[in-house]
Amino acid sequence: MAQEDVFKKLVSHCKEYGFVFPSSEIYDGLGAVYDYGQNGVELKNNIKQYWWQSMVLLHENIVGIDSAIFMHPTIWKASGHVDAFNDPLIDNRDSKKRYRADVLIEDQIAKYDEKINKEVAKAAKKYGDAFDEQEFRSTNARVLEHQAKRDALHERYTQAMNAGPDLNELRQIILDEEIVCPISGTKNWTEVRQFNLMFSTEMGSTADGSMKVYLRPETAQGIFVNYLNVQKTGRMKIPFGIAQIGKAFRNEIVARQFIFRMREFEQMEMQFFVKPGTELEWFKKWKETRLKWHKALGFGDDHYRYHDHEKLAHYANAATDIEFLMPFGFKEVEGIHSRTNFDLSQHEKFSGKSIKYFDPEINESYTPYVIETSIGVDRMFLSVMSASYTEEKLENGETRVVLKLPAALAPVKLAVMPLVKKDGLPEKAREIMDDLKFHFHCQYDEKDSIGKRYRRQDAIGTPYCVTVDHQTLEDNCVTLRNRDTMEQERVAIADLNNIIADKVSITSLLKTLQ
Amino acid sequence: MAQEDVFKKLVSHCKEYGFVFPSSEIYDGLGAVYDYGQNGVELKNNIKQYWWQSMVLLHENIVGIDSAIFMHPTIWKASGHVDAFNDPLIDNRDSKKRYRADVLIEDQIAKYDEKINKEVAKAAKKYGDAFDEQEFRSTNARVLEHQAKRDALHERYTQAMNAGPDLNELRQIILDEEIVCPISGTKNWTEVRQFNLMFSTEMGSTADGSMKVYLRPETAQGIFVNYLNVQKTGRMKIPFGIAQIGKAFRNEIVARQFIFRMREFEQMEMQFFVKPGTELEWFKKWKETRLKWHKALGFGDDHYRYHDHEKLAHYANAATDIEFLMPFGFKEVEGIHSRTNFDLSQHEKFSGKSIKYFDPEINESYTPYVIETSIGVDRMFLSVMSASYTEEKLENGETRVVLKLPAALAPVKLAVMPLVKKDGLPEKAREIMDDLKFHFHCQYDEKDSIGKRYRRQDAIGTPYCVTVDHQTLEDNCVTLRNRDTMEQERVAIADLNNIIADKVSITSLLKTLQ
Repeated sequence: MAQEDVFKKLVSHCKEYGFVFPSSEIYDGLGAVYDYGQNGVELKNNIKQYWWQSMVLLHENIVGIDSAIFMHPTIWKASGHVDAFNDPLIDNRDSKKRYRADVLIEDQIAKYDEKINKEVAKAAKKYGDAFDEQEFRSTNARVLEHQAKRDALHERYTQAMNAGPDLNELRQIILDEEIVCPISGTKNWTEVRQFNLMFSTEMGSTADGSMKVYLRPETAQGIFVNYLNVQKTGRMKIPFGIAQIGKAFRNEIVARQFIFRMREFEQMEMQFFVKPGTELEWFKKWKETRLKWHKALGFGDDHYRYHDHEKLAHYANAATDIEFLMPFGFKEVEGIHSRTNFDLSQHEKFSGKSIKYFDPEINESYTPYVIETSIGVDRMFLSVMSASYTEEKLENGETRVVLKLPAALAPVKLAVMPLVKKDGLPEKAREIMDDLKFHFHCQYDEKDSIGKRYRRQDAIGTPYCVTVDHQTLEDNCVTLRNRDTMEQERVAIADLNNIIADKVSITSLLKTLQ
Repeated sequence: MAQEDVFKKLVSHCKEYGFVFPSSEIYDGLGAVYDYGQNGVELKNNIKQYWWQSMVLLHENIVGIDSAIFMHPTIWKASGHVDAFNDPLIDNRDSKKRYRADVLIEDQIAKYDEKINKEVAKAAKKYGDAFDEQEFRSTNARVLEHQAKRDALHERYTQAMNAGPDLNELRQIILDEEIVCPISGTKNWTEVRQFNLMFSTEMGSTADGSMKVYLRPETAQGIFVNYLNVQKTGRMKIPFGIAQIGKAFRNEIVARQFIFRMREFEQMEMQFFVKPGTELEWFKKWKETRLKWHKALGFGDDHYRYHDHEKLAHYANAATDIEFLMPFGFKEVEGIHSRTNFDLSQHEKFSGKSIKYFDPEINESYTPYVIETSIGVDRMFLSVMSASYTEEKLENGETRVVLKLPAALAPVKLAVMPLVKKDGLPEKAREIMDDLKFHFHCQYDEKDSIGKRYRRQDAIGTPYCVTVDHQTLEDNCVTLRNRDTMEQERVAIADLNNIIADKVSITSLLKTLQ
């Protein structure tokens, strides 16, 4: 199945089974905003808990906080977001549509790749299996020409972006490449202007006016401005970390790929404060620690790769992404950055207050260096869903859709099903529920055939089902069915908690990290 | 200790021990916004988990969702918030300060009460213990006069508020009562105008402009617009409920009492969808269920009372508050409302789409009626903190401050302490940590005397401490100390998990609800 089709199926599966709904759907939706349904919210909460516990429970020197979305506006001046958190936008005068200039050019680069792929595919068809791509390339001038144009464009684009970006040059590239508006089909473009990505609102109301505040575009600054409060009241010693989960907002002009890039999204960020000079050592350690956390989910090591940044932001001295193989290619799910002392120094400068750490070991004060690990909850959710979504051909020729979620992340851990809706079986099933529901999320289901009920649980990734039958009333045993192997075994009701609880708990996942 | 002093102490305790920090403190703060510190976030998360699990795990027919803060703006038109979610504001022309007209009048009412209290206190002083308040009242004309004025003002104010409110009348009351601006001291007031409490921002950017969207002022509407998606994809049958925890925002002009009324706050709301005609029965049931949930925390039944609403909102046919005894009196922490089919009908009308429920039992479609249970997380947090804060005189004459938090809500469950920082005791203590940390939140502490360390743990509400001493290395036993009784017992390390885990788990709290 083509990866595009997989993605389409995944999106509709997310809606059909209560994972993700388009926001405000009965009002025809709101762009790039989504709601999590009854199964989505449980999966998302489990992801958050897995992260939180791996940070806070497993590290003696990491604590959490929960800072507000609203912060003092000067914070975003200090962080650089007011001046430099922009997208370059361009309007087409005929269609009146607005575009990101950089995205128009990136799409143009992709078009050259498409052309190359088409040439290769055409030739492959012609030459059949005997086709030798290497030979073809050397003989085909068209492919070389496309490649040369693509590379030149890429180089020119990269230089323009690195230069600020150079807005005139971006516009010139669009004109030179003869890029047309997809709506009007014309090249009638305005100038390129910078557009700030932060949402703003007015707080308070006085006769003199109100105060312009921003919705935070990242959770990190909430950690930086609180770090000394946490250090002092928590008596933390460097190195130590502060973890936070919370919403952030970016007014993306081009938001796409479902929940991958949203205007309202959630972050899990941990800022680790270290002694200057030790930051690259800690950067390396966190790179490894974070990859291990991802891999513990068991999707296979081939789903992950590092992408080390060659060009670094001005405040960073090392940066890498952990990329995950999504249906639309390897994409960043987490960033690990060595941010130096940039943010803390800026806050000292803009607040006029000293927020230096006093190090009792060397009897000296300094501004700590910071290693950041930053993960997008929604991207993580999408990566887990896409790696779990499976279509399997069964022996009887039917296809089953099964979400092979890590058991610790599954929304429902156990479905309890009476074989028939009579003879006291529902009562017996509920008895089992009433005992187990305190320990993990159970779902009761008595409708339709057992086969259909299994399919429904497969589709939401429930790792275990138990069936209560007439025999159960006599021997207090049930049939326990495994989602992935579809194997069934007869087990005593009294053993259920022991068999299941450990396998579906986040604790068991955490233990594999040590 | 006077209740005002208790409150002041509580606020400073919250800061000193990492529960609540003023937001953006190094930038001199942001009005009516607070951040949760390392202990606060754990307590808040535990409160949320207790609520979530009591809803979703214990009720087969309640599921969760997590809808976005951003919603289609027409939703707030339908809900009535665009037109009617207002505060009446008035400016003083001399000081240029802006006030809530209703609050100015309420403060004036309170002033009459103060006057009465002063008269009573004065007389009490005069008459000493022999003073008979009843006798005093009957003879003292001044008190009666104050009471009469207060009652008349209260009556006039209530009528003005119920009439829309009547803005001219509110202003007239302020003039008639000769209320002055606390800053300028003058009565030079402007007209009273309505001010909408919703924060708004601009989403997207097109050549034609952007879209005005609101930060949700309540989470409830996110449930209403999704209810049919959840019902269909989750195959729910009426009666069923949808639970949600999330941020909401209100641009309060007068925000006070610490985290009791904030501009950014968190709600835990559950909307329960029922067949029309059965709503009052369910209202009664939820009233009882919710009070039981609160009381299970063990603060004592005298801390709670119902406040049934006499005057109902136009969409409600029954409403009650659960009030909690805060240091500043009984205050609402939760509202239970029978909202009829108002919201769903409005969304049908404004979206133009049918969102009726098809009831298979009677083969008929209808718009469900809704019972809402709505709780403010931050208020709940404040109620838990204030009921837990205790100052105890010890036998040696010292005072200990102890947070008698329900163990299931405590941020840290166990502190592990080596008696001294040598002789292998720290290593032994860490060994214990490394085993138990997977099961509950542990904290390692080796600094200062054991007595000081106990005080620190008391101050953050840690229910258990274990001390590792030299004897431990021989017999693998430790001293387990109970926060509330301060009793110590010698227990085997191997038994620690069994002794503690159950007592500090949310599961054990949930079990008391059944």
